[in-house]
Amino acid sequence: MLKVKDISEQGLLKILHNFCPGDIIGDDAAILLTQSNKSLVVTTDTLVDRVHFSDRTTSPEDVGWRSAAANLSDIAAMGAFPIGITIALGLTGDTPVTWVEQLYKGIYDCLQPYNTPIVGGDIVRSPVSTISITAFGQVEPNHTIFRSNCQPNNAIVATGVHGASRAGLELLLHPELVESLTEEERSTLILAHQRPRPRLDILNTLWECLSLNNFSGTEDSKNSILVGGMDSSDGLADAIIQICQASQIGARIERNQIPIPHSLTKFVSPEQALNWALYGGEDFELVLCLPLICGQELVKKIGVGAAIVGTTTDNTDILLIDSQGIYPNEQLKLSQGFQHF
Amino acid sequence: MLKVKDISEQGLLKILHNFCPGDIIGDDAAILLTQSNKSLVVTTDTLVDRVHFSDRTTSPEDVGWRSAAANLSDIAAMGAFPIGITIALGLTGDTPVTWVEQLYKGIYDCLQPYNTPIVGGDIVRSPVSTISITAFGQVEPNHTIFRSNCQPNNAIVATGVHGASRAGLELLLHPELVESLTEEERSTLILAHQRPRPRLDILNTLWECLSLNNFSGTEDSKNSILVGGMDSSDGLADAIIQICQASQIGARIERNQIPIPHSLTKFVSPEQALNWALYGGEDFELVLCLPLICGQELVKKIGVGAAIVGTTTDNTDILLIDSQGIYPNEQLKLSQGFQHF
Repeated sequence: MLKVKDISEQGLLKILHNFCPGDIIGDDAAILLTQSNKSLVVTTDTLVDRVHFSDRTTSPEDVGWRSAAANLSDIAAMGAFPIGITIALGLTGDTPVTWVEQLYKGIYDCLQPYNTPIVGGDIVRSPVSTISITAFGQVEPNHTIFRSNCQPNNAIVATGVHGASRAGLELLLHPELVESLTEEERSTLILAHQRPRPRLDILNTLWECLSLNNFSGTEDSKNSILVGGMDSSDGLADAIIQICQASQIGARIERNQIPIPHSLTKFVSPEQALNWALYGGEDFELVLCLPLICGQELVKKIGVGAAIVGTTTDNTDILLIDSQGIYPNEQLKLSQGFQHF
Repeated sequence: MLKVKDISEQGLLKILHNFCPGDIIGDDAAILLTQSNKSLVVTTDTLVDRVHFSDRTTSPEDVGWRSAAANLSDIAAMGAFPIGITIALGLTGDTPVTWVEQLYKGIYDCLQPYNTPIVGGDIVRSPVSTISITAFGQVEPNHTIFRSNCQPNNAIVATGVHGASRAGLELLLHPELVESLTEEERSTLILAHQRPRPRLDILNTLWECLSLNNFSGTEDSKNSILVGGMDSSDGLADAIIQICQASQIGARIERNQIPIPHSLTKFVSPEQALNWALYGGEDFELVLCLPLICGQELVKKIGVGAAIVGTTTDNTDILLIDSQGIYPNEQLKLSQGFQHF
């Protein structure tokens, strides 16, 4: 009998998609048209003890913060602003009450800057602790960001540095590495892992850049929107590949343009740093495809960390290239990304 | 150190409520004002393998159906109609793919009559299978049903029979009991357990009854709504007690008016049947408090199974009374209800 572990997550989802309406799935979050002029955006995310978090590297407050941030990042990835979340907890009887309190505190603290309330939840007994968060957001239909809406010959923008979260985890697992870093470098990387920030802050800037250049769609049509993308929660490589596959385009990613914190090269090789940037995941930046002039302006407005990492193409090759000619071109692969099963 | 198992679910929620805005919690589902004229209703519910379901009595299709029905019932309990759900699954690697497919099929089949789509989800690896469903609905603000909005001297309506789901479970656990029942009686009880139906069908009828009698609120104010209530997913007794506590009222429940399927008395004592009706849970009916004339009309329109089970009072006693004078009055208690920890 075929088991879940025998097929990929994508394969399993494909089977399950038979039960879902085709036009509203396939993105980080789901779009439901409400009866107002805005679309309701819904996303859900589950963390399991010893699978997605561990007491060794993560306090309950950080677990809470990170699970909320992951959901808000999915909301941001759709171009939406959050309006509320629900929390479903499975807990062992032995879970300390303070653990649950601190978990909620972490969630609450993450939501605070966005005035987003915890609006409900469910707590059940379970042999293993699990946390499912569902977040809701709203977006103007012509400001919705789909991963399937990227065009060829556009700039690919990463809204911030990559590899920092994975490096922060390494510092927590191997504190001896810290010696080569300044205190500020150390805490910046660890905070990137423990307290990632969803990039809700760049959405208004994005639409300013597009409207200044007359690229902003006014009709409620997907084709009028000249930006596509998603977040990089599963790694920069994963985001680029998902975007290309969904939009049926290719990409040329310039290896030297990928924004990586300088401090990483103080304790790992450049190859390792690039690997973390592409495959480490959990940086929770946005990866956006938009016309070059808008991309340049967006990067300038966001400032430090943001970069144009490459260009979309009209074939389906997804290449990692080196304009300095040291490394040969190579296909960007998903294989090193996180596998759920 | 205080642990979850050391305090009640209510006590734990109380602590967690510190992190939630006070005005939008405390009901089966959360209300978020969207920018349309309707409120967004959100509810979430989690099932854990060997805690909430078992292969012995429940096929994956039935697990799916029941988890969807539980969520839709919470939506109905707020007076709302569903617009979508998300599903968060935690699965062991050993879970057969067909199990997941059948689970989804059960969910899908339950949602079909209400045109409610599965709009998203998350699947993660877990040492134990868990299913979290979050459902969204919409309701006109002046048609929202709160459990805290019940008035004294109103009729308490149960929209259908109670005890059937618990009896159906008993028949699955002890098939030998079936001998005293007709095939139709048997399948009705088992279906009540395996395929409960959320009472979304009675909402329009409810508002017809209220408006025909000029009891329908026209302002967007909670005080203008002359109906309060919730669903009976945790048992009829639980619903009545929760309603009374939230509304700061009391109730007199007439023992002989509680609608119990006649077939139950064929294989258990009347005391056992009453016990299942009050404490068995998972009948997923609505328990509504409304002016007597409307209650009578509603019961008449719903037909078989629906009944006025008692009256609300202006003190805080919640009494089970016997108009036939055989049993002494007794306080309705929660103690026999389902405890999460």
